Amino acid sequence: MPRKIEVCVTPALLGLYNIEQTIVVVIDILRATSSIVYGIDNGATAIIPVANVTDCLNYTDRGYLLAAERNGSVVEGYDFGNSPFSYTKERVGGKTIVLTTTNGTKALHMARAKAKQVVVGSFLNLQALCDWLKTRDEDVLLLCAGWKDQFNLEDTLFAGAVVQELRPHFDEFDDSGVAAEDLYQLAKADLRTYINKSSHSHRLAALNIEADVQFCLQLNLCQAIPVLEGDNLVRLTVNPAL
Amino acid sequence: MPRKIEVCVTPALLGLYNIEQTIVVVIDILRATSSIVYGIDNGATAIIPVANVTDCLNYTDRGYLLAAERNGSVVEGYDFGNSPFSYTKERVGGKTIVLTTTNGTKALHMARAKAKQVVVGSFLNLQALCDWLKTRDEDVLLLCAGWKDQFNLEDTLFAGAVVQELRPHFDEFDDSGVAAEDLYQLAKADLRTYINKSSHSHRLAALNIEADVQFCLQLNLCQAIPVLEGDNLVRLTVNPAL
Repeated sequence: MPRKIEVCVTPALLGLYNIEQTIVVVIDILRATSSIVYGIDNGATAIIPVANVTDCLNYTDRGYLLAAERNGSVVEGYDFGNSPFSYTKERVGGKTIVLTTTNGTKALHMARAKAKQVVVGSFLNLQALCDWLKTRDEDVLLLCAGWKDQFNLEDTLFAGAVVQELRPHFDEFDDSGVAAEDLYQLAKADLRTYINKSSHSHRLAALNIEADVQFCLQLNLCQAIPVLEGDNLVRLTVNPAL
Repeated sequence: MPRKIEVCVTPALLGLYNIEQTIVVVIDILRATSSIVYGIDNGATAIIPVANVTDCLNYTDRGYLLAAERNGSVVEGYDFGNSPFSYTKERVGGKTIVLTTTNGTKALHMARAKAKQVVVGSFLNLQALCDWLKTRDEDVLLLCAGWKDQFNLEDTLFAGAVVQELRPHFDEFDDSGVAAEDLYQLAKADLRTYINKSSHSHRLAALNIEADVQFCLQLNLCQAIPVLEGDNLVRLTVNPAL
């Protein structure tokens, strides 16, 4: 069977894809899927993504860490925000974290409803993710979380990085994958500078999260591939013999 | 007021944009908007885009030319198909044409429901369109007709060409506009070769429309800007003094 890899540039287009037999990689580079990858890599037992602070409250009194942030500040009474720097071994090892994220949660929940398997990608686990996808005999959909259902640059660039790495292992590509790969080629020498072209660059600057942005654009710092099991993102057990 | 230019990569995302005060440029390079521009430039009185052959039948016996094509062949009983080569002065001058086009019609009708004004773009009228848009004090949305609601390369490349030309005249850009412009930069030296990367290249080859594709990728062959008035696309009266 020819293998297909496609890029869905926003969750609003997910309905166009037949994903029952497909592995979906959810991508929300700034910052949800980067923090998730880093947290799982640092030994978090599970991360539960929820759409808003109210949903997060449903998880109080269970011994979970609660991560909630609005406008760049930790919400009062919560353990930490969405910065990947909060997801260190010391803080998250052996813990379950409930994480609020709007775009990322929406993409994860939409994918879960239909896909064969849902995993999480970020520049931090790019190579580990691609190495694992190469071993699977499955179609792949790269699902960009986007920004309020619109196309965004950073998620598309990561999708392009995956297409570039996996191209020799796949037979069919869509136009958004071709475009994403070429944009990544243009941007990869200096991802941070390229992302300054984004319409969101002013928003990012206002959030005062430059250190987070730099962190999220690092390649291959992590080996973990978070996989969705029910509501929980947990570490995928990768068997290199398969 | 800061002027905004945005790129909507498929009609399925049009609902995300507030276009009440916006000029929408509908783009369906292969081949609907290219044929429309060429036909209006060649003196067609009006072109009426309809979604399918059945709708086309509603216009019989009115003295209109009927253009309907399926799988690369003119539908029996129709005057011609969707090839721009049919839209010559000799054939369309002074005539009204009813044209079946799936993706293009959908985009035109969706835009018409909300936009301040709807015009038609193609590489054939790139410069004339941009020159006119520069003179208007309006926001612009470049609406790619795409392929079955998915992102496609050729429409996105044209959107990028417009963004590149208009950048000095606008203040706000979205991420899809940034991406489209960079893809056009990559592709512009040889648009035809770049479009071979498309997932549709096999489909195009099977349709045996290579001459049409080459024709549709020519820059600035036409001066006309088709504008939607009711159901009809007619030639926009451009007043250079405005």
